[in-house]
Amino acid sequence: MAVFTSVTEADITAWLANYSLGDLAELQGIPAGIENTNYFVTTSNGRFVLTLFEKLTADDLPFYLNLMSHLARHGIPCPAPVADRHNRLLGELNGKPACIVSRLSGKSVTQPSAAQCAAVGAMLGQMHSAGQSFEDQMLNPRGSAWRFEASQQVQRFLSPQDAALLESEVELHAKNTLTDIPRGTIHADLFRDNVLMDGNRVGGLIDFYFACTGNLLYDVAITVNDWCMGADGPSTGSGLDEERTRAMLRAYHSARPFTAREAEVWPLALRVAALRFWISRLYDLHLPRDGEMVHAHDPEQFKRILQNHIAASRTIWL
Amino acid sequence: MAVFTSVTEADITAWLANYSLGDLAELQGIPAGIENTNYFVTTSNGRFVLTLFEKLTADDLPFYLNLMSHLARHGIPCPAPVADRHNRLLGELNGKPACIVSRLSGKSVTQPSAAQCAAVGAMLGQMHSAGQSFEDQMLNPRGSAWRFEASQQVQRFLSPQDAALLESEVELHAKNTLTDIPRGTIHADLFRDNVLMDGNRVGGLIDFYFACTGNLLYDVAITVNDWCMGADGPSTGSGLDEERTRAMLRAYHSARPFTAREAEVWPLALRVAALRFWISRLYDLHLPRDGEMVHAHDPEQFKRILQNHIAASRTIWL
Repeated sequence: MAVFTSVTEADITAWLANYSLGDLAELQGIPAGIENTNYFVTTSNGRFVLTLFEKLTADDLPFYLNLMSHLARHGIPCPAPVADRHNRLLGELNGKPACIVSRLSGKSVTQPSAAQCAAVGAMLGQMHSAGQSFEDQMLNPRGSAWRFEASQQVQRFLSPQDAALLESEVELHAKNTLTDIPRGTIHADLFRDNVLMDGNRVGGLIDFYFACTGNLLYDVAITVNDWCMGADGPSTGSGLDEERTRAMLRAYHSARPFTAREAEVWPLALRVAALRFWISRLYDLHLPRDGEMVHAHDPEQFKRILQNHIAASRTIWL
Repeated sequence: MAVFTSVTEADITAWLANYSLGDLAELQGIPAGIENTNYFVTTSNGRFVLTLFEKLTADDLPFYLNLMSHLARHGIPCPAPVADRHNRLLGELNGKPACIVSRLSGKSVTQPSAAQCAAVGAMLGQMHSAGQSFEDQMLNPRGSAWRFEASQQVQRFLSPQDAALLESEVELHAKNTLTDIPRGTIHADLFRDNVLMDGNRVGGLIDFYFACTGNLLYDVAITVNDWCMGADGPSTGSGLDEERTRAMLRAYHSARPFTAREAEVWPLALRVAALRFWISRLYDLHLPRDGEMVHAHDPEQFKRILQNHIAASRTIWL
């Protein structure tokens, strides 16, 4: 499914001549990923991942590649883009913008333990700290303006109750933009499938193509909403699992301490993080892009998470 | 022997707060190394090596750290210095300049096979290619001026024959500075103990603290003189092993092709590379520095290598 642009051994061998990575040993397509074409590339220098960008353009990409390079330089286990002989991170292959990055170890988990949630929380805190010295900026493409616009477009597909909920939440967060909490570079999509776990260790953070500049707490909330969902599984829409949530938040707090104001607005952060994915899932379900091959995720899941957060807004978490 | 400056778990834990590397898991002194103090440091983010510089000063170090960072960014398996929260590669610990770098896999081999020599030759060629876009410069501290000065100082310890040999070789290479072959950033000390092998793969190139700007061919000659010495072992001072030498040179040539002029002056490069280590070993033996704890290597070995190269100067190698 996800190999949109085919790359042959001859293609990659010729392309590798631009790099100092040695000779090709193995090329293998990766049948995962939604927006890009990915291949595992093994050379005499080691194991790498080749990415051909199918939608993102060469204008957008420097932010993401520079960010990964910056984080890798700070010891965060994330894909490190390899520079070519002209010292450029971004190349072109078969007509597409392309890069080759280091391959990380580990695999994603579907049912994380509290210890794994703690490891991810700590790593997210380290990532936020390391990102403080990253100077490039990127507006959140799923921020307030997008929420308003996209929610207008999906309203007509919803029941009156859901439409009212969506409208009131979009309004609430448009009024509460939380400009008084720490900002920085955020991953903004650190779901379980974007973390490679090596036992209880984080082997790698991957897929930085929603990364942007934003509130750090929002990134924590996105991560908690996915990693700490109830023990009876995401599909039931139950609230957060307390043990995993506390493990993740404590570990994050040790790496990058929350401010008092962040602790105060945490329930709002959980809500806006849930709202963002409710809206995008509604949008992907009802207004799929032409040629979209993605299997749309169920929007109901994030509606229920949002409803639970609204109901639990008075819980003292931090 | 080589832990000159002691580092406690409390020291490193406090120091790691400057980095985004997570919590300390293990600290272990490394009983190897001559010029620096080294520790293995394992944190929740991975495996690293801490180096405290005992002789090199903070003025010299940016070249080496920037070089390793540049090569790592190009996919060369070398220690990648980790940047601190202020984006600096060089820190200070217990009064010494210090850095923390990624830890590589593999171990050094004493009796390399032809396949391993080929892997090292290819990697050296990749390193030279990747180094072409590195802009910092460093004079060779063991270049022509040093050879002249050091040879003057050791003359009085030598037999008349050895003194005459030394003088004539120093003069020969002072006259033949080989300004018409490709230059770049060279490792200048890629002996077997500075390469970590992972089977037949190069797991890492280490110890860049003799790296400088110089003739690429000189770096190849230094490497060949150590890796390709005769099958009956270095101590016999026999000539180069033909199979291993050809394997290394062919692999290097595939990665970074030799020019015609380089092929022509190759015998001279082998001689000057041998001369450099004959002189430094004579110097370390006869004029040890105060407090020098290094066990001096036998200078005779490199004298015999040099003599063999002189005798074989008409061999067509490339």
